[in-house]
Amino acid sequence: MALVTLLTDFGNSDHYVAELKGAILTCASGATLVDITHLVPPGDVAAGAYILGRAWHRFPAGTVHLAVVDPGVGTARAALAFSAHGHFFVGPDNGLFTRVLHDTAVQVVTLPTPRGAAPTFHGRDLFGPAAAALAAGHALGSLGEPLTGIPVRLAAPPPHYEGKTVVGAVIYVDRFGTLVTNLTAEEVPPYARLVVEDVDLGPLRSTFGDVPTGGLLAFLGSGGEVEIAVRDGSAARRLGLGVGGRVRARLG
Amino acid sequence: MALVTLLTDFGNSDHYVAELKGAILTCASGATLVDITHLVPPGDVAAGAYILGRAWHRFPAGTVHLAVVDPGVGTARAALAFSAHGHFFVGPDNGLFTRVLHDTAVQVVTLPTPRGAAPTFHGRDLFGPAAAALAAGHALGSLGEPLTGIPVRLAAPPPHYEGKTVVGAVIYVDRFGTLVTNLTAEEVPPYARLVVEDVDLGPLRSTFGDVPTGGLLAFLGSGGEVEIAVRDGSAARRLGLGVGGRVRARLG
Amino acid sequence: MALVTLLTDFGNSDHYVAELKGAILTCASGATLVDITHLVPPGDVAAGAYILGRAWHRFPAGTVHLAVVDPGVGTARAALAFSAHGHFFVGPDNGLFTRVLHDTAVQVVTLPTPRGAAPTFHGRDLFGPAAAALAAGHALGSLGEPLTGIPVRLAAPPPHYEGKTVVGAVIYVDRFGTLVTNLTAEEVPPYARLVVEDVDLGPLRSTFGDVPTGGLLAFLGSGGEVEIAVRDGSAARRLGLGVGGRVRARLG
Repeated sequence: MALVTLLTDFGNSDHYVAELKGAILTCASGATLVDITHLVPPGDVAAGAYILGRAWHRFPAGTVHLAVVDPGVGTARAALAFSAHGHFFVGPDNGLFTRVLHDTAVQVVTLPTPRGAAPTFHGRDLFGPAAAALAAGHALGSLGEPLTGIPVRLAAPPPHYEGKTVVGAVIYVDRFGTLVTNLTAEEVPPYARLVVEDVDLGPLRSTFGDVPTGGLLAFLGSGGEVEIAVRDGSAARRLGLGVGGRVRARLG
Repeated sequence: MALVTLLTDFGNSDHYVAELKGAILTCASGATLVDITHLVPPGDVAAGAYILGRAWHRFPAGTVHLAVVDPGVGTARAALAFSAHGHFFVGPDNGLFTRVLHDTAVQVVTLPTPRGAAPTFHGRDLFGPAAAALAAGHALGSLGEPLTGIPVRLAAPPPHYEGKTVVGAVIYVDRFGTLVTNLTAEEVPPYARLVVEDVDLGPLRSTFGDVPTGGLLAFLGSGGEVEIAVRDGSAARRLGLGVGGRVRARLG
Repeated sequence: MALVTLLTDFGNSDHYVAELKGAILTCASGATLVDITHLVPPGDVAAGAYILGRAWHRFPAGTVHLAVVDPGVGTARAALAFSAHGHFFVGPDNGLFTRVLHDTAVQVVTLPTPRGAAPTFHGRDLFGPAAAALAAGHALGSLGEPLTGIPVRLAAPPPHYEGKTVVGAVIYVDRFGTLVTNLTAEEVPPYARLVVEDVDLGPLRSTFGDVPTGGLLAFLGSGGEVEIAVRDGSAARRLGLGVGGRVRARLG
């Protein structure tokens, strides 16, 4: 019986996650459920896509990843299940799987809406049972019809060059106020200097201890992206920056 | 070995939930624990009762539901375990089970306070071990004496009529600021118009996508109750309404 | 296959906890994971140490406790695994295990940093795999070299006497705003009166119901320490007190 991971914007304070888990465990009683998070900001598909992209590949092959950040619930947007990289994924067709799909060809099916499903809670009534079916070993192809076309993907503009400067953007802000960017080691060599809002952060550091408490630093984060942090503090607050904010690497 | 669900107001930041889980797993090592929530507002028995009422029946028969929102911990209020609808329930006798008990006859036992139990932490020292005993297959009747009388139930005034208007009330506010009411499809036919604080929300919609972003809507929620929401926003904030607030359905 | 408990300051809203769990379940697929908390205030080793000290011994012998509150991640601080009281512990050598180690002799090994480990995420790349190895039954001695010297312990000044008064300190504040102190039944006999900031709380009570709603009380908490609370309220807010605040017990 497979692992099922759960990523939603349902929050931890209401009954929604429990209803979803109950629905899964009713169909797949031996499944092991692992929360990725239920605190995606409500309706923030891009944040959900980032978190899912960071987490899914850490789990063993065969894991079922259920992701529901679904502001279009109950509308005409498709409901998807697919297999990629040896894992299964279930959720709405709204870009949530952008970071799973970017480098792979996949088999995708669209899931029918079960009779009686609540139009505002497809997590419980549609996606949950589909994830449970996959966890219980049902074939992907038995869950729905093949998708015509390709799944929705979020636009993700790559960094661009302005003379000898690479200009990237903040793509995610974590709990600590650390700014994750779309810059990677490929664009930012060791001799480059990171600059945010006229603040020169110097070259990439290795870890927080490389600057004094309260100091700003840039480093290659645990997901392979350049991150901007304040040691024992919040870079988002210090710099007044959020998703979309510009981060520059000066190469000369 | 059974599933054990957990609903408390202990929060997620301290050691209380872990102490409770450790106590259960020490007595019932194979139990599968599923959190409903630990973020019930401290001491808010009515909110706990609502959440439990929404979640418990989604789990398979035989599940043990441990619910501890217990402002009267250590006082003379009884400690209960009972079986209803093929599920088991354990918790204080303060109304927390109102929505489980409303339509069923049940066998209820009162749990003795174990010697040495901390007067402020019956979750860990009394209810947890009782839930573990049920999960491990012990008979309900072996846990305590039959309750004399009936369990405490919270008063839940039904909607009333004022001429051609049904007047209901908000009974729960979720993470999204969505207002759950005590009105159901029975009182609110498709031709009725929902009105809150002089704002006319029109008839029941199907889902959020039926109004523009930022729009107010009323719909039949996933629990069968009429709910008031703002698409991609908070109805509680927009309308300045909380539990007890009036919601009207105009029938003519 | 053992239980693995998790205590971190990673928060519940990002991908960090899921990455850690994925890493563990990849190495130890049958492990049962139990969250203690992931909401330790960022970098607050003392709070993490208190929570761990309250929780670990509630679990069955053989449990692996993974604790990562690690502001020095990626620096020269050692990474530890050890066995104590029949349980296993894994985490940084920064005082996080102070309350586990205070009364026991233990076998401690230092964990090497795996090649390629992210310098800012030893939880996922170093501590997680070590905990998984222990959960899978690998011998502690196979994970690293014996520690030279003893693990770091946080200073914990005991209560002191000023004439007929014992002066203790707040060591932890919980979700409810309840103040946990370093005073115990040993220093505070039944005839003693508790005093905080010139407010006389009277003698130790048994439970919240012993004072009216909104009333201040002192009681012997579920961890054996004197605690200060407000019934249905927050003592931290009422008294303006936090960790380090003075609490006095007048003995005559």
